[in-house]
Amino acid sequence: MAKEITSRAENYSQWYNDIVKKAGLADNSAVRGCMVIKPYGYAIWENMKDQLDRMFKDTGHVNAYFPLFIPKSFLSKEAQHVEGFAKECAVVTHHRLMNDPAGHGVIVDPAAKLEEELIVRPTSETIIWHTYKDWIQSYRDLPLLINQWANVVRWEMRTRPFLRTAEFLWQEGHTAHATAAEAMAEARLIHDVYAEFAEQYMAMPVIKGYKSENERFAGADETFTIEALMQDGKALQAGTSHFLGQNFAKAFDVTFLNDKNESDYVWATSWGVSTRLVGGLIMTHSDDDGLVLPPRLAPIQVVIVPIPKPEPELLEKAEQIAGLLKSMGIRVKIDMDETKRPGFKFAEYEMKGIPVRLGLGKRDLEQNVIEVARRDTKEKMSVSLDRIDSFVQSLLSDIQASLLQKAKDFRTEYTTEVENYDQFKEVIEDKGGFVSCHWDGTTETELKIKEDTKATLRCIPVDAVEEQGKCIYSGKPSNKRVIFAKAY
Amino acid sequence: MAKEITSRAENYSQWYNDIVKKAGLADNSAVRGCMVIKPYGYAIWENMKDQLDRMFKDTGHVNAYFPLFIPKSFLSKEAQHVEGFAKECAVVTHHRLMNDPAGHGVIVDPAAKLEEELIVRPTSETIIWHTYKDWIQSYRDLPLLINQWANVVRWEMRTRPFLRTAEFLWQEGHTAHATAAEAMAEARLIHDVYAEFAEQYMAMPVIKGYKSENERFAGADETFTIEALMQDGKALQAGTSHFLGQNFAKAFDVTFLNDKNESDYVWATSWGVSTRLVGGLIMTHSDDDGLVLPPRLAPIQVVIVPIPKPEPELLEKAEQIAGLLKSMGIRVKIDMDETKRPGFKFAEYEMKGIPVRLGLGKRDLEQNVIEVARRDTKEKMSVSLDRIDSFVQSLLSDIQASLLQKAKDFRTEYTTEVENYDQFKEVIEDKGGFVSCHWDGTTETELKIKEDTKATLRCIPVDAVEEQGKCIYSGKPSNKRVIFAKAY
Repeated sequence: MAKEITSRAENYSQWYNDIVKKAGLADNSAVRGCMVIKPYGYAIWENMKDQLDRMFKDTGHVNAYFPLFIPKSFLSKEAQHVEGFAKECAVVTHHRLMNDPAGHGVIVDPAAKLEEELIVRPTSETIIWHTYKDWIQSYRDLPLLINQWANVVRWEMRTRPFLRTAEFLWQEGHTAHATAAEAMAEARLIHDVYAEFAEQYMAMPVIKGYKSENERFAGADETFTIEALMQDGKALQAGTSHFLGQNFAKAFDVTFLNDKNESDYVWATSWGVSTRLVGGLIMTHSDDDGLVLPPRLAPIQVVIVPIPKPEPELLEKAEQIAGLLKSMGIRVKIDMDETKRPGFKFAEYEMKGIPVRLGLGKRDLEQNVIEVARRDTKEKMSVSLDRIDSFVQSLLSDIQASLLQKAKDFRTEYTTEVENYDQFKEVIEDKGGFVSCHWDGTTETELKIKEDTKATLRCIPVDAVEEQGKCIYSGKPSNKRVIFAKAY
Repeated sequence: MAKEITSRAENYSQWYNDIVKKAGLADNSAVRGCMVIKPYGYAIWENMKDQLDRMFKDTGHVNAYFPLFIPKSFLSKEAQHVEGFAKECAVVTHHRLMNDPAGHGVIVDPAAKLEEELIVRPTSETIIWHTYKDWIQSYRDLPLLINQWANVVRWEMRTRPFLRTAEFLWQEGHTAHATAAEAMAEARLIHDVYAEFAEQYMAMPVIKGYKSENERFAGADETFTIEALMQDGKALQAGTSHFLGQNFAKAFDVTFLNDKNESDYVWATSWGVSTRLVGGLIMTHSDDDGLVLPPRLAPIQVVIVPIPKPEPELLEKAEQIAGLLKSMGIRVKIDMDETKRPGFKFAEYEMKGIPVRLGLGKRDLEQNVIEVARRDTKEKMSVSLDRIDSFVQSLLSDIQASLLQKAKDFRTEYTTEVENYDQFKEVIEDKGGFVSCHWDGTTETELKIKEDTKATLRCIPVDAVEEQGKCIYSGKPSNKRVIFAKAY
């Protein structure tokens, strides 16, 4: 089975598609650009969702649900928002089908045309701020710390499973505050939550930074981002948190009375991560044998395979071990399939990225040991059955830590400081990865670099060191380094 | 605050709307027929969702996600499905907006017309069975036991929050089986799960039955239903589970090789419950002072109110009690608001249906007691602080059981056996509730009764006793009683 996937060296893009397909994560659908998320892929997303939801709730947020549809006129209320956004979107124009009088199935009933077209939400700032107008009168109604888990649609021309699809699943937080400082603190708090989730759960190191004016979300005064590095040297924007200032409050006329009884516009943030994270997870850790998953997000953390097949004696022991592991909160599967050979099963579990495989043979059992194989390094160990529970528990922690460290090492190797434009172009072209360099702060320079090299300004790191330097493109002075890369 | 809602006796429908609004469950939105589910209402739905999801997983189901859009041509592939369904739906015809050349915001770009229109899913049988064709080759690929949590859209003309909205949230299970018997067993299993959830979690008794041919889901060979009775004597269809036979497999040409290597069409079920359940929950238990929630689904089960306000000494004790309760898995809130008076707070917590309120005053504290008030009966008790944790725990169980019993008693009172059509009409008109009667089994009779009385055949109970009788309408022989009622 593992043989069936293309290697990264041969064709990285095909390798990615092969993993998505062979590990059973997603399928194409009958609708252009929309994918079907298969049960195994969805289980990964569920684990992400559950953990993020806990983190949002622990920081005081609640969930709600706003309509799928947005009246067309709403989109043009915030000038920058409509300019930078939402032109490519699904437009609902009618609300009824009818039988084709000619007898060929159904047709759209021309009599059922909507007075105003509805847009399938590409993001929900507009409909939410229209709603917040009714919910906010005074500072006592603030802050509103609301998140929603939802599907959104952006009519993308070139799509790839998880990374860019016409419909995707995400969460979008939309908060309302009495002061700019509080809204900014909220945007930063979520930025921290996203970075912690990426590193501690996905084992995917990220650079925390903010976007240049040119790369900001349409309607934001500041966009914070977490940027990850994929194995092909391209960057992936993995989550963004926006300080929206009073832009949407002004567009939808949302004012409040502050504690001095003065009227002011409300301050806002919005923030989101999506099923794109599943794509990032795949590309951060997987190898030429298939998916590699960090234990904290793996739907199955440990699989027990009776060898050569599930006979009663082996099954009994397997169930005993599984019971022990489950009592420690570990997600375990016992392979009960009698029709496949161990070699085939091993390849399949490697393809699916199950972090730990326990092979239980009769001779092992006699010797009171079990074979433990870890997916990430392919190491195999013979471990005493007496301490298998504590061994597996600490092995799962090791794998989690080791995947993060490996990804960090890769990022270190593929982060290059350059001092001039020739070096810049050479690194972007040949080596790839993050390029750390001085930039003069202008959109003009940023766009020229992009035009020349296809590299975009990923972010200005929040922890960038103050240092004097010269813009690699214009030679103008700069006081900190920024990160450029080719990106998904 | 409680004074602000209309009484049930005065105007039941307005009472319902008042509760939805004043308890902070949902709001109208800018889009006709679509509601905004507010955080408190969404928290109830989340509790329902979490419990149902556990029950589905415990019975071997997994989650997945299929596209929001369905190609128009799919809807006409299953003849009955298109006949009975999906005429009133949201139709996407274009995929781009453009700036209005006349300068008035944005307009639909006429150049971006889709070749084939897309329908926003009213239910997903068609797109899912189109997908299953690729997933199923042999009996080894079966069963598929897949559920999805999703939003769906049906362009309803008359909408009411939760009970009937153009967009709603639901789960839809779609399973595929090798035999008719296995599919039928699955449909019945889910029927049982739904009934158990309704009774044990929602404290809402239901009649388990199956639908007449006329009331079946479009495309189903059998539809199982759970029917609940609301306080105004109207029935609410709360969940349905369909045995689809081979209808969708035939429409989408989904065949498999069975264990004798013969090709056959796949057998199917589908089943769903929706945010409508929140409406059922409201109408089963609530009273003229507001919402009443069964503890198992209440977002907050216990609120602790320091009296007259949160002073340090009281807060310290409140936190100690809250800690004890939380350690038992109880959801507790401490009221920290210093600006409102206890009476106002009490009314607000009654409106929100919080099952248990603990009032902690200074004098109580001196005497080592606390005032415990239960929402359902309004009883108040003074309880020793030494045993407050076990007292509250058993009180929550009592409330859960007592709400179910009360609802069962109500249903018994409002279930009437009638023997002739005059009695039938009188009960439907004057008393309301479920009417148990003999019916001749024909659609003709069923529709005439509906036309005369607006009562519909809710279900044929699965546990109906075999007895000889005469149809109340036609006088023809009948061998079991069925249930009629006016319904939501």
